[in-house]
Amino acid sequence: MELAQYFPVWDQLTPEQQKTLSGAASRQSVKKGTILHNGGADCTGLLLVRSGQLRAYILSEEGREITLYRLFEMDICLFSASCMMHSIQFDITIEAERDTDFWLIPTDVYKQMMTTSAPLANYTNEIMASRFSEVMWLMEQIMWKSFDQRLAAFLLEEAGLEGSNQLKMTHEIIGNHLGSAREVVTRMLRYFQNEGMVKLSRGTVEILNPEKLSHLAQI
Amino acid sequence: MELAQYFPVWDQLTPEQQKTLSGAASRQSVKKGTILHNGGADCTGLLLVRSGQLRAYILSEEGREITLYRLFEMDICLFSASCMMHSIQFDITIEAERDTDFWLIPTDVYKQMMTTSAPLANYTNEIMASRFSEVMWLMEQIMWKSFDQRLAAFLLEEAGLEGSNQLKMTHEIIGNHLGSAREVVTRMLRYFQNEGMVKLSRGTVEILNPEKLSHLAQI
Repeated sequence: MELAQYFPVWDQLTPEQQKTLSGAASRQSVKKGTILHNGGADCTGLLLVRSGQLRAYILSEEGREITLYRLFEMDICLFSASCMMHSIQFDITIEAERDTDFWLIPTDVYKQMMTTSAPLANYTNEIMASRFSEVMWLMEQIMWKSFDQRLAAFLLEEAGLEGSNQLKMTHEIIGNHLGSAREVVTRMLRYFQNEGMVKLSRGTVEILNPEKLSHLAQI
Repeated sequence: MELAQYFPVWDQLTPEQQKTLSGAASRQSVKKGTILHNGGADCTGLLLVRSGQLRAYILSEEGREITLYRLFEMDICLFSASCMMHSIQFDITIEAERDTDFWLIPTDVYKQMMTTSAPLANYTNEIMASRFSEVMWLMEQIMWKSFDQRLAAFLLEEAGLEGSNQLKMTHEIIGNHLGSAREVVTRMLRYFQNEGMVKLSRGTVEILNPEKLSHLAQI
């Protein structure tokens, strides 16, 4: 059963628990751009990514965004089932950044199983600790790194994800990822261009000098 | 047994588990200013606060600090046992902000019990989710609120904690809490003084107009 691959503790579940989880999981597909989970408004369930890419972000009252982390093949999305724990008091939005294929496990089935399976509860703990770590890393970036470093790191990360140095992204989209205004992004990209690190054209940022960018990003 | 008060799931532990936890817990006291846990360097164990006040913060390479959250009477400090979960990949420092009296449960005893008790594992999950929520709140503050709002909110929070509008804190200490340089704090406090919200004297910030401050903080 494919679900077993997502849970290193699968063998520590009873055959009955394995059957319940497998029976409750449904295969789903969404198109790029679909919002899978929207803050506190819904409680979709656990998402087990089969292929594609999800983005978790927070949204300010004024509509500004900041990307918290991404989920790829074989990752488990916990916060789409955030109602599972009443101590989760923040709203995360989950968006499909590519066409995405996933298993959905309904929240109530999973929650019920956690109450009886210590291995599953502990594994869920590890998933949460791992997302917590990503958010802490991000906070340290925001606090201690300047915007030029963060933007340089972001461009390199995107190039790695896309497998290309030609990034088709507007300055507004980049701003959304980094929680910054479009004008701030434009200003800094122009500085990068003047330094020969990138080349700008309509809707595209081309990385010309990744070494210089990564030196700036200190990565 | 006093430990039971810290764990709403106490009654779901077996008598043997209750005995093990109680037997392993030791009562300890530290003076104000003591560092109880220092990043990834040690793994003290779970701290159950009996009285006093703990501060959890992160530290940049350059020695800048930012306060993540505080723990008071009846709170459980999980990250002082961060080695318990290998997915916790960030370093938090825990400092006693007042003379503090606590129960210490060794990490290995607690970790072992989580592997056999689903209720304890799930409760630990809730504690982590609750700290995660505090950090997300802080990140939203940093991202979306301007420094004047954060400083105003901080002064009001401190006044509440101290039960006094006379805050004995240097500008450097305030900067450490907020992750900002001393100069930035001084400049903003002078602006607050000009606006009649505070009065500054050596080592003291006196809140003169809490209404105006809380209007600024939007709380």
